[in-house]
Amino acid sequence: MSTPAPISVETLHTRVQSIFQSCGLTPQNARAVTDVIVAGERDHCKSHGIYRIEGCLRVIKAGMVKPDAIPELHDSGKAVIEVDAHAGFSNPAFFAAKDTLVARAKETGIAALVIRDCLHFSALWHDVEALAEEGLAALSMCPSYASVAPTGGTEPLLGTNPFAFGWPRPGPHPYVFDFATSVAARGEIELHRRAGTPIPEGWAIDRDGKPTTDPDAALAGAMLPFGGHKGSAISTMVELLAGALLGEFMSKEALEFSGGTHLLPRHGALILALDPATFSARSGRDPLAEGERLLTAIAGQGARLPSQRRFKARVSSLRDGIFLSEAELAQLDRFEAEGLAAL
Amino acid sequence: MSTPAPISVETLHTRVQSIFQSCGLTPQNARAVTDVIVAGERDHCKSHGIYRIEGCLRVIKAGMVKPDAIPELHDSGKAVIEVDAHAGFSNPAFFAAKDTLVARAKETGIAALVIRDCLHFSALWHDVEALAEEGLAALSMCPSYASVAPTGGTEPLLGTNPFAFGWPRPGPHPYVFDFATSVAARGEIELHRRAGTPIPEGWAIDRDGKPTTDPDAALAGAMLPFGGHKGSAISTMVELLAGALLGEFMSKEALEFSGGTHLLPRHGALILALDPATFSARSGRDPLAEGERLLTAIAGQGARLPSQRRFKARVSSLRDGIFLSEAELAQLDRFEAEGLAAL
Repeated sequence: MSTPAPISVETLHTRVQSIFQSCGLTPQNARAVTDVIVAGERDHCKSHGIYRIEGCLRVIKAGMVKPDAIPELHDSGKAVIEVDAHAGFSNPAFFAAKDTLVARAKETGIAALVIRDCLHFSALWHDVEALAEEGLAALSMCPSYASVAPTGGTEPLLGTNPFAFGWPRPGPHPYVFDFATSVAARGEIELHRRAGTPIPEGWAIDRDGKPTTDPDAALAGAMLPFGGHKGSAISTMVELLAGALLGEFMSKEALEFSGGTHLLPRHGALILALDPATFSARSGRDPLAEGERLLTAIAGQGARLPSQRRFKARVSSLRDGIFLSEAELAQLDRFEAEGLAAL
Repeated sequence: MSTPAPISVETLHTRVQSIFQSCGLTPQNARAVTDVIVAGERDHCKSHGIYRIEGCLRVIKAGMVKPDAIPELHDSGKAVIEVDAHAGFSNPAFFAAKDTLVARAKETGIAALVIRDCLHFSALWHDVEALAEEGLAALSMCPSYASVAPTGGTEPLLGTNPFAFGWPRPGPHPYVFDFATSVAARGEIELHRRAGTPIPEGWAIDRDGKPTTDPDAALAGAMLPFGGHKGSAISTMVELLAGALLGEFMSKEALEFSGGTHLLPRHGALILALDPATFSARSGRDPLAEGERLLTAIAGQGARLPSQRRFKARVSSLRDGIFLSEAELAQLDRFEAEGLAAL
């Protein structure tokens, strides 16, 4: 069997957007969802690449998302901006509010964006990169489904609660991290289960709250936060800031609402944008040049900056195209031909 | 030798404040510095208790701090407020700006406080607790001295960079965490050195960047961030947000400026305050009641909420007084009688 020829980032974008439009998304919504999925595939971040198309179609078919929702911006004119996704995907809501968030942060120094009532599957790095491109530092966080026990606890209560940060750099790629506050992703445990190999110690506990290296027992029990009680505290902070603070679902309520983890969760999200020019003005120093001193010193020690693998993959995808497998291409064909009926 | 009688929190406050005033602090500065030191002692948080008096006096004696500095508030009327400590301690600067920060956060939903050019020794929990008392969620962070190598690196570059979060609760005590982003504090390694016991694996590397359990080799090398590359990324974020963003020192510059870690570091700090009433208004839900659902569920699993030991100690100190050792009381006497000459 010959390896399929690569397809360009643009071609993949056109094909994915067409799939979403044929499944009821408005062109604007389809573009926003496609942007993040194709960016994931482009960056070899397969967990947020075209693999996600099926999950998006499933929530449409299940009637859990409004594919043609029109995000509604609520701008108080102050430092907190809100956008109601109206049960649509999070991505169109973010992009509907992005320009206002950028302008407000540059005007007031710091601004927050609240996304309400969305279906969420997005890679948070996509949002913080978009803000870093505008010269802003950014934080992004959201709850997910309750699948992680607090450190010292016994039952799933916290989500895998991603936490992302972006910082503008002079070159094409900002400083970006985006990680789950659980020690491992659920998918990684699933891979061990399929391979019949034990999971490392410290990843999970079983149904009785006991440490386990058995993937089946882990999946029936709870995952653990990264970094012990410190990571558990950060995950709790994400629940409070991106859930309770907004009056939106936390991970437990998101799970109760959906009745299981087989579909994308519904909840809100919080994004903070900080303008280095405002914050540093009185100092007379160049904040980005200062940041470079640190970041080049980290890299100079041989330590890896986060996202470097993604950026490397991005360069090669933009130059050589994206290499998809036969199965992936066949699935794209099926989704294009059959839409929701392909599920 | 009989155990000394306990002294009341008020008496200790009066004695400590009097020491600082006799060493040149204005009454307002002395009160702010005393507040955090006595709060630390009251909460059995010895690392930020009266043990810190000597360190404060040392920087005064060395001429590294301006004891009678008058913090200068710069209020743009927007979401970012600045206070210049003018080479004074951080605590009076924070308290000089606190009311403005609280009012601004309630007006704009989110506000940031930049503290510039301060000598820093404060427990960050003290600041976020003061904001939680006003009904605000708060984040606080600052660099320190370069003593931690980035994950995968070999040399000290990051500080122990504390990161604190506060969330208001209905009872007397908020949800608060405050931790170093290093896996252990330098003082803990020092305790192992004195006891002649090895440090746990994963705490530190030696001068050649190799993992070590030898406390001497660790102190000559570098500490490591908590939680591997995720903790390293958070520590880097603290350098960028509470250093570069503000145009203030990062941990490496703070170390170069002081020429060693024997005196308190000079740098800035960043505090964010978020108003739950503003953020949740459109949802119709009570954000603090939502938060309680999560926090009581964590405690209900038998998991410990952060700061619970401190709050328990606080209750007993307020009821029974603070128990100091003979040596601690003798040192207080000496500082009271001799001031800076006691050093």
